[in-house]
Amino acid sequence: MSEKKLVVAVVGATGAVGREMLKTLESRNFPATEVVPFASARSAGTKVPYGDSELVVRELKEDVFEGIDIAIFSAGGSTSEKYAPHAAAAGCIVVDNSSAWRMDERCPLVVPEVNPEALEGHNGIIANPNCSTIQMVVALKPLHDAAGIRRVVVSTYQAVSGSGQKGISELETQVRQMFNLKEPEVNVYPHRIAFNCIPHIDVFLENDYTKEEMKMVHETVKIMRDPNVKVTATCVRVPVFYGHSESVNIETERKLSAKEARAILAQAPGVQVYDNPSEKMYPLAVDAAGEDATYVGRIREDDTIPNGLNMWIVADNIRKGAALNAVQIAEELVRRDLLGVKDRTVFIKK
Amino acid sequence: MSEKKLVVAVVGATGAVGREMLKTLESRNFPATEVVPFASARSAGTKVPYGDSELVVRELKEDVFEGIDIAIFSAGGSTSEKYAPHAAAAGCIVVDNSSAWRMDERCPLVVPEVNPEALEGHNGIIANPNCSTIQMVVALKPLHDAAGIRRVVVSTYQAVSGSGQKGISELETQVRQMFNLKEPEVNVYPHRIAFNCIPHIDVFLENDYTKEEMKMVHETVKIMRDPNVKVTATCVRVPVFYGHSESVNIETERKLSAKEARAILAQAPGVQVYDNPSEKMYPLAVDAAGEDATYVGRIREDDTIPNGLNMWIVADNIRKGAALNAVQIAEELVRRDLLGVKDRTVFIKK
Repeated sequence: MSEKKLVVAVVGATGAVGREMLKTLESRNFPATEVVPFASARSAGTKVPYGDSELVVRELKEDVFEGIDIAIFSAGGSTSEKYAPHAAAAGCIVVDNSSAWRMDERCPLVVPEVNPEALEGHNGIIANPNCSTIQMVVALKPLHDAAGIRRVVVSTYQAVSGSGQKGISELETQVRQMFNLKEPEVNVYPHRIAFNCIPHIDVFLENDYTKEEMKMVHETVKIMRDPNVKVTATCVRVPVFYGHSESVNIETERKLSAKEARAILAQAPGVQVYDNPSEKMYPLAVDAAGEDATYVGRIREDDTIPNGLNMWIVADNIRKGAALNAVQIAEELVRRDLLGVKDRTVFIKK
Repeated sequence: MSEKKLVVAVVGATGAVGREMLKTLESRNFPATEVVPFASARSAGTKVPYGDSELVVRELKEDVFEGIDIAIFSAGGSTSEKYAPHAAAAGCIVVDNSSAWRMDERCPLVVPEVNPEALEGHNGIIANPNCSTIQMVVALKPLHDAAGIRRVVVSTYQAVSGSGQKGISELETQVRQMFNLKEPEVNVYPHRIAFNCIPHIDVFLENDYTKEEMKMVHETVKIMRDPNVKVTATCVRVPVFYGHSESVNIETERKLSAKEARAILAQAPGVQVYDNPSEKMYPLAVDAAGEDATYVGRIREDDTIPNGLNMWIVADNIRKGAALNAVQIAEELVRRDLLGVKDRTVFIKK
């Protein structure tokens, strides 16, 4: 890690992911001389916790990025679209948690355990993948390297914290209302989420898939750098507060036994194999919550095809699925000495 | 429907499914002169509701089946194993909701919309399939007839009512405990189910699949009468009270467009197509609860293979998944004039 001490901004610091980013920067001893929280004018002046102290939130404006080395954004797509180019033009590297820049060819889409080399030659804006994609590729990349994944059929069980504080409040409020014999109010999700499963995350697209489902399709190919990995996804919101679970079926080019897959994953960075059925040991959202690893279990051969495997992948969607992965990208930028924006005109022509 | 009035027994009448069976017999005007509830000695003498009145529960014994035409069992595998042969030997037809007889070659395994003809030549014990299997085959059979299903990858989202009253109580109690800042007690499931997903239903088998998962594999083949239908399943318990949801990916021999699949399912018995993404219309557990139909939506082509489709299938696991299907089997026996047990010695040799 470089000796240089850095100024780091967190944009969207008052949200669920923003707060987790501050916590992660602090707990991982990120080499920052200063951490600056930004949010909209509405939240400016409020305080957010940072370690044992508090930081005063500043208002996000186009001209605030001068002198900031890295800005981690988690403030939604439109904020990122508007402000990230100004940050890059000021020489500040953006690590963006929204979907705004992920499929832009000028922007690397990075999971540090999977494709850190994609950071080389960045243009100032680096995209953090979708939460559901991150945990899946952390688990699948080592298997892909070993046996060549050709097809993935994934069904997700996604926590309400994926929608931020408002998702968490919605589930809690609806459950309280129902247990107090009141009609649950539906505000955040299209339908009641309490004691229900909703197969609809993000908007529907022309092909009747949701945007969330197509993120998993396209982002996986970009991160794996292999268009031969075909993904089909069904994304479902479930009444869980923290931790996304995924039921993943893969077809590989070469045969992988369940035992081989377990051995490969046991060595894989960021992965914890948690797979002992006789001890009722398999990944659970409630166990993954608050942890950094991506947990993989229920690994078993699928004999409906010659080279098939089923598995169950769980991670904390706010940590590895968002804040942690973003901070890991920032760490990797420092480690590879990739600070500074070489060409500040890529996103805003002068 | 025959004019004959029948004596019908419900074995396990005090359980969640047993109560629903009584309700279903009454609401569908099943042609019974008498309905007799049975349960263990512990529950004998208690009362269960039947229409506007109540019935006194009798103790289940080996010699109670004389004079009973049909006994619908929902009292667990060991009770069915022990008592069903005695019922058949007494000339009483058993419709059994447990897994005890499902894969027995002497017993038809029946979903009336799918394979009612399997009832012909029965030996006195007829098996009701697993809840997850029933709703899946109701939706898949018409597509299989049209295009030849070759492979099914299914991930389930199963409600706690699938474990009976004790599952319902466990979820409710854990949520109340957590909302009152108490540690949730884990009694029924291997782990906490409140705000969690557990990829473990029924026991683990040698191949690391659960028995629930292998039920979906084997029962589907038996009901469809086609060993070419390969199923691989991941069965997951979710914090939902009523209604199982399933994310189902199929591969067919002949190409089926999503539009064709919708048209076929719109004509299929027992199926309701509920599929209009632009109106946020897709099947939901909370909507299916208390209903008879199997709901299918999110139908879309999977272009990772030449002939692939994804869909989302939801039904009330206590109704179509258990009580309703069993009563429909009884109705079909009456309709086909298949009452009486021709050879009473099939299960108990004299």
